Parts: sequence; C-alpha cells; structure tokens
Amino acid sequence: MTQIYDRVALVGLGLIASSMFWAIKRGGLVGEVSGYARSPETRRKAREIGLCDRVCETVTEAVKDADLVILCVPVGVMGAVAAEIAPALKAGATVSDVGSVKADVIAQVGHELPSNVHFVPAHPLAGTEHSGPESGFAELFDNRWTLIVPVEGSDPAAISKLRQLWEGMGANVDEMDAEHHDLVLAVTSHAPHLIAYTMVGVADDLRRVTDSEVIKYSAAGFRDFTRIAASDPTMWRDVFLSNKDATLEILGRFTEELFALQKAIRDGDGDHLHSYFTRTRAIRRGIIEAGQDTAAANFGRGGAAPK
Amino acid sequence: MTQIYDRVALVGLGLIASSMFWAIKRGGLVGEVSGYARSPETRRKAREIGLCDRVCETVTEAVKDADLVILCVPVGVMGAVAAEIAPALKAGATVSDVGSVKADVIAQVGHELPSNVHFVPAHPLAGTEHSGPESGFAELFDNRWTLIVPVEGSDPAAISKLRQLWEGMGANVDEMDAEHHDLVLAVTSHAPHLIAYTMVGVADDLRRVTDSEVIKYSAAGFRDFTRIAASDPTMWRDVFLSNKDATLEILGRFTEELFALQKAIRDGDGDHLHSYFTRTRAIRRGIIEAGQDTAAANFGRGGAAPK
Repeated sequence: MTQIYDRVALVGLGLIASSMFWAIKRGGLVGEVSGYARSPETRRKAREIGLCDRVCETVTEAVKDADLVILCVPVGVMGAVAAEIAPALKAGATVSDVGSVKADVIAQVGHELPSNVHFVPAHPLAGTEHSGPESGFAELFDNRWTLIVPVEGSDPAAISKLRQLWEGMGANVDEMDAEHHDLVLAVTSHAPHLIAYTMVGVADDLRRVTDSEVIKYSAAGFRDFTRIAASDPTMWRDVFLSNKDATLEILGRFTEELFALQKAIRDGDGDHLHSYFTRTRAIRRGIIEAGQDTAAANFGRGGAAPK
Repeated sequence: MTQIYDRVALVGLGLIASSMFWAIKRGGLVGEVSGYARSPETRRKAREIGLCDRVCETVTEAVKDADLVILCVPVGVMGAVAAEIAPALKAGATVSDVGSVKADVIAQVGHELPSNVHFVPAHPLAGTEHSGPESGFAELFDNRWTLIVPVEGSDPAAISKLRQLWEGMGANVDEMDAEHHDLVLAVTSHAPHLIAYTMVGVADDLRRVTDSEVIKYSAAGFRDFTRIAASDPTMWRDVFLSNKDATLEILGRFTEELFALQKAIRDGDGDHLHSYFTRTRAIRRGIIEAGQDTAAANFGRGGAAPK
C-alpha cells in the first residue's frame, strides 16, 4: 500500500478514531498520525496502548502540520472544535469528520474553517456498542461503507485522496448529499437505536417483571436490543438532537405501522401478520447476500453452526 | 449421563425439536426418540440427516409407546394436535410442549388430554432466526433458561423428570405460573419481535430510501433488527394472536415511552435523552454478567476483539 498522506491528525480518540489509527497502521497509509483528546485520562491511556504516533497536549499542536485533520468528536461539539483548530490549520489542508449526521455538522463546521482549507465531510457506517480509546480495532471498517458527503465547492482532488484513505482502511466508499444521507441514516441507524433504547427502558421500568427476570430470560430476543441500547449516550444524544427532522419523520412512520400491527393483533387478523412477517425476511436475505452480515444463526453466538 | 426416559416422541420437527434431538443424543438422555412432522418433505429430510431414531408416517405411531410426548408445533395448532394424539397416548405418559405462550396453550391442550396422562407445559428460551429440521444443533439450550409452567394437579414426579431432561440438554430450569410467564415473555421476546418486524417493514416501504440503500448501509444498527425480523412467520403470527393481552399491554407502554423520547428530541431536551441512554446500559451489563450474552463487540462479528 502506498502512503496517501504525510501527516494526519485525529481529534477525539474514541472507538472510531482508534479503529482508524489501527487500520492506517495496518495499511501503511500515512507517514505520521498525531492525536488529541480533551480528557487527560484518554491521552494517558492512548500513550499507554500506543494509539497514535504522537499524542499531543493541545489540539493546536496536533493539527498544525497535518495534511488531513479528522474530527472524531460527538456531533454536538463539532462546531466548537472546528473554531478552536481553525487558526492553526495548514494552508491547503483537508478537514473531514466522522459524524453520524451530516447537514447539521456541515452547518456547524463549514463557516468556522478558513477559505484556504478543503472541507470534505464523511461518515463511516461502522461501530460497536463499545466506546473509548481501547475499543478500536483495525478490522472495524473492512467491507463496511463510508459515505463521503461533499459540500459545495469541495475540491475533487481532496475528495479523491480521502476516498483512497477510506478504501485503504478496508471500506467501500459512496458519495451522497447531506439531506439524503441524514434520511438514510435515520432509517438504518437513528430510528432503530431510539427504538432499542425505548424498549430496554420499558423493560427496566416495569414493576411486575423484575430486572433480574429480564436479564435471565433475555435470550429470547431482548438481548439484541440491549446491545444496541448500550451504545455511547453522549454520541446518541447528539445524533438525535442534530438529525431531529429525519428521525422524527421515520419514527412517525414507525408508529403508524406499529399501530396497524397492534390493531391486527387485537382483531385477530392472522393473514395480515403472516404476510407482513414474510415480507421482512427478504430484506434479511439481501443483507446477507450483500456481505453486510453473516448467515450464521444468532451471529454464531457460542460457535454453533446450524446443521 | 443416566437415561431419563425410555421413549420420547417429538411432534413437529423444526428448530427446537431438532435441537432437542441432538442435545438428547449428546447427553445419552433417552433410549429411543421417535419423531413426526406433518409435511412429507420434512419427514424425508429428517430421515436423510438422521434426525430422530425413528421417523413415523403418522403421529399416532410416533406417540403410542412414548413415556414423554413433546409438542413442538406452532402455538396455534397445539389444541388440534393434542386432540389427534389423545386416544393413542400410553397411560401414565407425560405430555409437554415448547410453545412460547403458556396460558393459551394450556387452555387449548389441557381439556383434550385424557385424565391418565400428566400435562407439564414448558418453554425453552432459546432460538435463532433459522427454522426447519436442518436448523437445529445440540448446543442451542446450553446455559439458556427453560421455564416449566405446571398446571393445577401437575404430578411432582413428572415435573421433576422433565426438569432433569432439560438440565441434561444443557438448560437452566425455573418454574413459573402461566400468567407471569406470558407477561415476562411479552417484555423479553414478543414486543421486541413485533417492534423489529415493524421497523424492517417501515424501511422496506419507504419510497425515498431504496431497499438497496437499506441493505448496503444496514451495519449501522438496522441489521440487528433484520435478524430478529427473519424469524418464522407462522410461529410469530401464532405467538401474537395467542398472547394478545400481554403483548398489547407492553406495546402500549412502549408507545408511551417512545412518545416521551420523541418529545424530548423535538424540544431539544438533551439531559432527558442522556440520562435515559445511560440507564439502559446497566441492563446490558447485567445480561453479560449473567452469562446470557458475550461482551465481544458486535457479537464478535468478523472475529475482531476490542483491544
């Protein structure tokens, strides 16, 4: 693999940034990766595990010589961090991000940056329920999709180089506009997360079923919701607040459909339920055929394969 | 492992029955296991893969000498199957089932059975999104819970023997009354399944986001819903229709909470969202500590462990 950038700075050192670092090292994609995290504890931990070639004490120091700066902070603080780094950016540098929402991030970050840097927003569709500098691993992006969301005037050469970096980290890359990105993510990620959080909250609240019962008997479906609902609370608070319209639109559709299915249950309309449940199987097959999940039962929990 | 029953009959040869057969063989728990499935194709497939010591052409033949008969058919046909086997049952035999709903199954099956057999309902809380005779594997019940739901007059010796069989197949066993069972399962299984089916249906319906986008970008959370929503449609139709009251009660609570969270998003109430999302993490930790799921990120998809 040829080196794509001389110097890259990662601002924020959580799951995504740490996975990027290991994927960059695996591919030999960058000369030097500097890093910065606001919390001294995170910087200490990063140094301890060798995360980043150089962990800096200030964000200015981390970004000043970088050819590419990637903002890996919660969506709610993207604008503030952009304002902080703006004076230190090298002329001609590219600034990107990994935020789960794009229109709001573009609105926050765009006007903070000087005109002599390129802004190329992006979003890797990958993650786990773990967070923090120790949660990353080089394979996180392999065969997953990263969406690049160019803004008006994004430099084609800067886009092309960022695409090469993501491909070097194992990802497939598509381009999309911000509004469509936010709607697609509301469907595939934001609404499912809110629904999972809600269901786990309901179970926790219910007086007549104890938490210990919920925990012991979770294998019947509920535990998959708890995995999703264990994701980072700060990240998700910011996602919902900054992708408000699309998330509320999809949740509105969801509620309509849920009411229709509740009515079918109440009315004993088995045919409606059966045909609905049959239709949803096709999407699952599509996901497996597209290599976005495994067909192994239960994700192969326990290592047992179906005979 | 000592042999617990001389002869066991499995009626219905899907995921649960086939896993029971392999678990029984692994433990040497039964002298001979006979099996019956209504579909000739399923019987042929069962013979081909060695599922059951003897696959019978009629249900009467399968059950007539059995000390234990286990109904492994969809909840909606339990009563009809019980009526069919009733005249052929051996005096003193135990009849059990593996249905996901208990009050309705007890109402259907109880009055069909002759007074000289023992009825001991049960429900193993284990499964995968696959179905059919080839989907079973011996480890399905290992460290999962099976709930035994005795009815009035259930013979203590018959209960104790059935408990031994489930423990021999790797399961932990609890006893519970039918009404409480149905409420607990509405929370841990039935409502989550309906919600997952609904979300997948919404995604499939949405004109502005194509199915191919939903499929490609599913790794961001949605694919976990599709796994749940790929479960057997007939089984789940019957579950919702026969556990109507408890399912609708839990869905009602779910909708209330969802509306409260939607309002928090609309109002920009980040504190409410953050504290809600923090609380739900504790249940996840409980499930991992109780050995009901793995802490490996993403269920260890792709085999990568967090560093």
